[in-house]
Amino acid sequence: MEKLKPRTLSGFMELLPQPQQQMERMMDVLRRTYSLYGFTPLDTPIIESSEVLLAKGGGDTEKQIYRFTKGDSDLSLRFDLTVPLAKYVALHYAELSFPFRRYQIGKVYRGERAQRGRFREFYQADIDVIGDGKLDIINEAEIPAIIYQTFTTLGLRRFQIRVNNRKILNGFYAMQGLTERSGDIMRTVDKLDKIGAEKVRVCLTDDCGLTADQADEILAFIAITGSNTDVLTALQQYAGKNEVFDAGLDELNTVVKYLSAFGVPEENFAVDLTIARGLDYYTGTVYETTLLDHPEIGSVCSGGRYDNLAAYYTDKQLPGVGISIGLTRLFYVLGEQGMLNADLPTAPADVLVLPMTADLAPAIALSTELRRAGVRTQLYTEAKKFKAKMNYADKLAIPYVVFLGDDEIAGGVVTCKDMATGEQTTATLDETLARIREGLAAKNAGCVILEK
Amino acid sequence: MEKLKPRTLSGFMELLPQPQQQMERMMDVLRRTYSLYGFTPLDTPIIESSEVLLAKGGGDTEKQIYRFTKGDSDLSLRFDLTVPLAKYVALHYAELSFPFRRYQIGKVYRGERAQRGRFREFYQADIDVIGDGKLDIINEAEIPAIIYQTFTTLGLRRFQIRVNNRKILNGFYAMQGLTERSGDIMRTVDKLDKIGAEKVRVCLTDDCGLTADQADEILAFIAITGSNTDVLTALQQYAGKNEVFDAGLDELNTVVKYLSAFGVPEENFAVDLTIARGLDYYTGTVYETTLLDHPEIGSVCSGGRYDNLAAYYTDKQLPGVGISIGLTRLFYVLGEQGMLNADLPTAPADVLVLPMTADLAPAIALSTELRRAGVRTQLYTEAKKFKAKMNYADKLAIPYVVFLGDDEIAGGVVTCKDMATGEQTTATLDETLARIREGLAAKNAGCVILEK
Repeated sequence: MEKLKPRTLSGFMELLPQPQQQMERMMDVLRRTYSLYGFTPLDTPIIESSEVLLAKGGGDTEKQIYRFTKGDSDLSLRFDLTVPLAKYVALHYAELSFPFRRYQIGKVYRGERAQRGRFREFYQADIDVIGDGKLDIINEAEIPAIIYQTFTTLGLRRFQIRVNNRKILNGFYAMQGLTERSGDIMRTVDKLDKIGAEKVRVCLTDDCGLTADQADEILAFIAITGSNTDVLTALQQYAGKNEVFDAGLDELNTVVKYLSAFGVPEENFAVDLTIARGLDYYTGTVYETTLLDHPEIGSVCSGGRYDNLAAYYTDKQLPGVGISIGLTRLFYVLGEQGMLNADLPTAPADVLVLPMTADLAPAIALSTELRRAGVRTQLYTEAKKFKAKMNYADKLAIPYVVFLGDDEIAGGVVTCKDMATGEQTTATLDETLARIREGLAAKNAGCVILEK
Repeated sequence: MEKLKPRTLSGFMELLPQPQQQMERMMDVLRRTYSLYGFTPLDTPIIESSEVLLAKGGGDTEKQIYRFTKGDSDLSLRFDLTVPLAKYVALHYAELSFPFRRYQIGKVYRGERAQRGRFREFYQADIDVIGDGKLDIINEAEIPAIIYQTFTTLGLRRFQIRVNNRKILNGFYAMQGLTERSGDIMRTVDKLDKIGAEKVRVCLTDDCGLTADQADEILAFIAITGSNTDVLTALQQYAGKNEVFDAGLDELNTVVKYLSAFGVPEENFAVDLTIARGLDYYTGTVYETTLLDHPEIGSVCSGGRYDNLAAYYTDKQLPGVGISIGLTRLFYVLGEQGMLNADLPTAPADVLVLPMTADLAPAIALSTELRRAGVRTQLYTEAKKFKAKMNYADKLAIPYVVFLGDDEIAGGVVTCKDMATGEQTTATLDETLARIREGLAAKNAGCVILEK
């Protein structure tokens, strides 16, 4: 028969078993952390009606969308988890309780130009808190606490959550008489990290039509840096001139004040006036998270406060605050940087049971007992040479091999080899189990991500 | 602004938070059980090149496939997890170790005619063991043991795993000189449950062109029933006449013999000569699993042994054995039958913390401590009346509400209300934690599925 060359589409991540286990661990940390904060898991369809999904209009991303017809239906694959959330909350409004706290970890689709490290199918891991009409500012302080908890549980220490407030920016631009152009200005300022202050100044004057003085004002404003207290103090000089600015400063003060109550250390958190998030969607606190040793990656977790989640679907005022982690890209970058902890077990099993007798019944019974004790156990039954069996355990990095021969069966014991140390013991099942459990606990003690 | 009516496509399951939690529990049981048997998780793309995905030709399902173009690419959404597995193993053959044991729980897509209980996007939960060149028969006995373990962990007792062997059928048809027509005959016999013996007889004579005697022979053969020993003994009368039959009987005897070693009780397992699985793909042992009280649902977990997983992609002989659970449909049916255990917690949090002071810092610190102890905690911060807060906990079925007022803070205690019993205690955090943990353990003790 003629063979077709098997291939996976470019831009689609397909992992080998060992990295897949690392990815599962990362997802597991996210699920557990989000659950600890009282977020409920959601799972919405990957396919939606194009009319519903693109109600807002696709903007820049519209041509990236996977859109097609099936029968009479005009369908699209979701390109983020926010629009499906808006639809979900509007559709099920009467059946939900607010504040509604949900997390969703799911694949989204964007037909980006294929290039290394860019994915067309990728996981996003989102949390959002949605209020009905109102939502307390404290939620905006809790979100960075969750980011902090998530990243430290993953094993990171050297990261910084940068926080700003859109009202401060909007108020400041209003003081300068630049409200009409504030969207363009913020999109320009957002590029500061990438293109530098000088180019931002040129863009502000040439593209946004600002005077040199106005551009200087803006650059002076976003140049306010230092400790959080320094920045908040410096901002005080603009207070009392614009209501929106004052409201934003008040919110930012509250967020900063509560962050220490939430246990987020000062070094993992910075007020940063250059953060605007390019989206018009956000209306209050905004977040970006950067890895201090890898600023080139950009933000690995971003989000913010919005006033109206589902304006396209409902008259209900649904303010919210949320963040999104681009999980597939983060995983890829961590792998490239050698930051995935290779010491954590990635084997499909904790124990490989090798029967050494023709009758497999005792080995089967032993495997059943190991599983009952919570030990992931593979019973090896292929007719291979002993060396091939040991090679198999070795290649899969299975930490323990348990042998069961006539002597062991007669003596009511098992022989167990630690594949890392080579140490081999013959002992009762209970003793062996204790040894295996202790070993596994030690091997599993580390975090998924390893900083260098 | 004009509003667009939000909707979810028909045939796409989108659950409310409470049933979603039940679905998560089911998935969790599957993941944990499959892991206990040494299967490694895989996650392949939902989109594949149409050429690769449809290499085998789509047959009956081809017009159900979601197929579309994006740029120059002819793409399709996967319609099962087997073809992607075949591609994966062929593509990554050199990097895998065999036997390769993988599980995958993922969404697949089939544009079926929309009707109640039929889904166009649905989860399959598959396990497969793939050998390189050979694969021992013991794997075919382990699979029903895994089915047994999975369904009992989910909470089911009244189910039956039906097992047959395609070689027995093929050998039997060869004895009757009906090899050429065995495919048609098996597809006809497969309908026995649905249409009854008389209609099968008519199909066999009229559609398959058998003589009345041949049809009688076949009906007599598939009428062999009774205990597993009865059936195996009755099959012995056909032995010695055809090599394929004898090989099949030998395999079936081995599978049955080892099943008791694997701890599968006789009542959950039956040799059933009417099981053929309509697919030509299977070559040895085949499985179906039925709920004894709901035979109308059909098989909830099916699979079998195949000789050649990836013949379309590689010359390598890759025999395997696997099963698939149609998870979305199973979940839907269990819900319809009222078999999902409503007593298990489905709340997003175990504890709702209600701060009773203007300064939230003590309540934030308490929430952090609860989470550190592994308790899923939501801090409630909205400015609502006390009754509205309690209603919120009630509607979400959050089991415990913890109050923290000035008195509690001064006394170093917390007040905790069990929302199910109404019992309220004021005690130290440690004492309260012990009470909450004990309560949660009791509430979480049940299984996901409840038989009536």
